[in-house]
Amino acid sequence: MPRGRSNGASRLSRQERAGFYKAIFGRRDVRGHFRPNPVPEATLARILNAAHHAGSVGFMQPWNFILIKAPRIKRRIKKIFLEANAEAARAYKGSRRTLYESLKLEGILEAPVNICVTCDRSRGGPHVLGRSSIPETDLYSTCCAVQNLWLAARAEGIGVGWVSILNQETLRKALKIPRHVVPVAYLCLGYVRRFLEKPELELAGWGRRRPLDELIYFEEWGRRKSPADWGRLEKLVQSIKK
Amino acid sequence: MPRGRSNGASRLSRQERAGFYKAIFGRRDVRGHFRPNPVPEATLARILNAAHHAGSVGFMQPWNFILIKAPRIKRRIKKIFLEANAEAARAYKGSRRTLYESLKLEGILEAPVNICVTCDRSRGGPHVLGRSSIPETDLYSTCCAVQNLWLAARAEGIGVGWVSILNQETLRKALKIPRHVVPVAYLCLGYVRRFLEKPELELAGWGRRRPLDELIYFEEWGRRKSPADWGRLEKLVQSIKK
Repeated sequence: MPRGRSNGASRLSRQERAGFYKAIFGRRDVRGHFRPNPVPEATLARILNAAHHAGSVGFMQPWNFILIKAPRIKRRIKKIFLEANAEAARAYKGSRRTLYESLKLEGILEAPVNICVTCDRSRGGPHVLGRSSIPETDLYSTCCAVQNLWLAARAEGIGVGWVSILNQETLRKALKIPRHVVPVAYLCLGYVRRFLEKPELELAGWGRRRPLDELIYFEEWGRRKSPADWGRLEKLVQSIKK
Repeated sequence: MPRGRSNGASRLSRQERAGFYKAIFGRRDVRGHFRPNPVPEATLARILNAAHHAGSVGFMQPWNFILIKAPRIKRRIKKIFLEANAEAARAYKGSRRTLYESLKLEGILEAPVNICVTCDRSRGGPHVLGRSSIPETDLYSTCCAVQNLWLAARAEGIGVGWVSILNQETLRKALKIPRHVVPVAYLCLGYVRRFLEKPELELAGWGRRRPLDELIYFEEWGRRKSPADWGRLEKLVQSIKK
């Protein structure tokens, strides 16, 4: 298992870097392509260890991982999803509603493993280093752990889907999560028949990827024109259109 | 530049996977080891593109990246840090206070590039797919982008430090960020003299890494004993100490 060592300030080799970017660009939010094969325990352990090596505010490590396989629990979560999704669908009208209802938005029952990643807001006591100005940084840290988990799963050939259409209170009760703990992410994991080339919502025509250059400002909010200092950056970013 | 293509459901090769984990386990929160060398624009473009390829709720992509190099702006942010940090220090007494004050917690002026990653909470209109139950999922998505950025920087041999000791309102004013936009992360980037083997707060004796097995529950919150279904997982995780 890879450990925390690093080679001084060296970069990764070209091939190592290619592997890293393969996980970054090949990661998908998987809902409909899970295979039933079990995820080997050693693989799951590596993925969880990657999540645990995210940075956290004041080294707080506020996360826990609730691993779920029991069909009884999965069915309860699926029910919570169906209720929340019926409500969510009402926001859309006409063809958008039809498109919404055609989308598969979770794979709770099909994915062999579900993981609820939580944030214990009381961990580390009342004064966590670096958390005094922005108390939400514990939740932010937990999201960094989720992203590590998501990417590590991709590197292992495993798909992850984040189910966000869930009433948090009902979810908390179903998993017996205490009040001071926030269920940040409910994830479905499993091997997949394929990883799509693009995000499913893009392929379905729900949305498009925004051009990166439109999201970059220089020195302050809203300043699009790249000052002399930033050289070729704007051109380089524009050339990333894909 | 790596693209969004993926090789079906294949895993990464052994060496590619090693590269991926090198970034995961070698990533550090860098405060004190920045070198003044500029970050090449092409490298910065790759790092920003990695951030932009995080998943986001309903394909919302709520993030913006404010790139900061101007000494005038950096000095203003540094002042905001110093004020917030003086207040934060008051929470600690005795030897803990002495230790706190000995820690270097930011590299705003030394790092050649600062990046403020923001979340535009209004993007995508009032009904973003998947955001109706948990409105904070836009902030969560932005954190996933931050983690992508942090890891891609590490893969490129560049250190990142997340400065969280900042008054958000004052920061917003300094960067002219409108009210509906949240400055989620203020990051310092640059080449480093070295990446530490362990987190700086661990080496300084401020905290220790929690054993991973204590953070894992089975089927519901608080259940530590691994049911028969989970096989060797608990043992595997216990063997991961450090």
